[in-house]
Amino acid sequence: MAAAEASRTSEARRDAVFGRWVVFSPARSRRPTDLKSHNPTNPSPGPGADAPPKPSCPFCAGRESECAPQIFRVPPDGSLPWRIRVIQNLYPALRRDVDPPPVPEAEGDVSSDEPGERAVPGFGFHDVVIETPRHDVRLWDLDAEGVRDVLLAYAERVRQLGEHPAVQYVQVFKNHGASAGASMAHSHSQMLGTPFVPPSVTTRLNCMKEIFDRSGNCSLCEIRPKDILISETPNFSAIVPFAASYPFEIWIIPRQHISYFHEIDQDKVWSVFKSARYFNFY
Amino acid sequence: MAAAEASRTSEARRDAVFGRWVVFSPARSRRPTDLKSHNPTNPSPGPGADAPPKPSCPFCAGRESECAPQIFRVPPDGSLPWRIRVIQNLYPALRRDVDPPPVPEAEGDVSSDEPGERAVPGFGFHDVVIETPRHDVRLWDLDAEGVRDVLLAYAERVRQLGEHPAVQYVQVFKNHGASAGASMAHSHSQMLGTPFVPPSVTTRLNCMKEIFDRSGNCSLCEIRPKDILISETPNFSAIVPFAASYPFEIWIIPRQHISYFHEIDQDKVWSVFKSARYFNFY
Repeated sequence: MAAAEASRTSEARRDAVFGRWVVFSPARSRRPTDLKSHNPTNPSPGPGADAPPKPSCPFCAGRESECAPQIFRVPPDGSLPWRIRVIQNLYPALRRDVDPPPVPEAEGDVSSDEPGERAVPGFGFHDVVIETPRHDVRLWDLDAEGVRDVLLAYAERVRQLGEHPAVQYVQVFKNHGASAGASMAHSHSQMLGTPFVPPSVTTRLNCMKEIFDRSGNCSLCEIRPKDILISETPNFSAIVPFAASYPFEIWIIPRQHISYFHEIDQDKVWSVFKSARYFNFY
Repeated sequence: MAAAEASRTSEARRDAVFGRWVVFSPARSRRPTDLKSHNPTNPSPGPGADAPPKPSCPFCAGRESECAPQIFRVPPDGSLPWRIRVIQNLYPALRRDVDPPPVPEAEGDVSSDEPGERAVPGFGFHDVVIETPRHDVRLWDLDAEGVRDVLLAYAERVRQLGEHPAVQYVQVFKNHGASAGASMAHSHSQMLGTPFVPPSVTTRLNCMKEIFDRSGNCSLCEIRPKDILISETPNFSAIVPFAASYPFEIWIIPRQHISYFHEIDQDKVWSVFKSARYFNFY
């Protein structure tokens, strides 16, 4: 990693043994943290404390100038206080300002070139979704409208990133607590737009394609085992997957057969949260 | 997981989305632990304390009757005190006493049958290698002969498991500390003989085969980048891989081109440890 550290720019490397792409990002190691320990509990205070913005937190309202550039906000009107901000990550794992790799011939296949060792500049997008202007509020403290708006912000940013010819995949993720890799306590999630499709996604696509070719059935539409159903609404099912690979793994599956999250009917995203109010009784 | 917990037997499941096999083992959750917390530091005492066997530790000398059956020991002569014991795991993730799945047509491919959801009994072997009779000694406290004998015990057990027609892969692993998943402080490692090849191994094999078919070269024999070489002996190279996927990842590669660890020349295993003494000066 000496070469990458010297240049201080992100790099994607593929070896001649696994053939998978690994992102090297020396800049990530310099990012600040307000989560001091690796204690798995989140040290952020609970809701309702009505605490002022934390002086050192750049994700709090009033400190927007300390962040990397904003991509969009909710609501879009600049005259109202923001509720959600989608911004660039100040310490990106992948960079939008380097040359993207050539667009592969086959969709989703960056390795259609000769296999073997290869290093390319770490092109890609790494964004942050600040889910609330308040330091003392977590995602699950938001009301249904607040959570819906976060999901719709994901969908809008996925749609934008998908328009870039070199972006092959968009990953939305949320690390909660220092032991999960979070460095900032203020409630946020992250989005990565990558020039390759991660191997686990390729595995899933290939398996589902093989089953579809043989049976004409969509594996996700066919999932109806009653013993692992958590809840069902007209538009979504929440299940424990048959071959779950970690404790408390849950899949939320749209009942409408669609291939892309950002193509989902916005009214249907809303419907799951209207129903979600009912879950409070559990 | 309700069904698996009710039956209390291990099960391997494959879903219709990822198509990968996941082992469900309710028995594992009942295993005892003498590592109380998830503190990443190992609470076992350091060497040289000359402490007596821990009264509650079944891996200590003198408590052999509390363990699952022994497979073999080092030295083999029962009249001498043992230095290494290879035993069955009392809380196995996979069980040797259930029917194995049919041997697949294609080598290493258990999914040559119709894809889709499937559950089979959790057949396989799950063994423990107790690396020392002493509770207060860790693997790196052993002298070169002691570590060599642990590696040769792995090789012998891999060879034995490989003779079973349903065993497609043998995984040797060592969890150190509670945060890595270890439940027992006494120095030990584990071996799993599985009726399927794990996806990450298949990925590696396929990548290396593709490169070999194109170039006639073995990817591992070709690795000679000087900037990531840690050390080299006549028989082994220790490197940081070009696309390492976690910090401090190290590969130890035999310089002799062989496909199986258990086919390695025993004298060569010994040679790396004679050389290893030299490493103490670093």
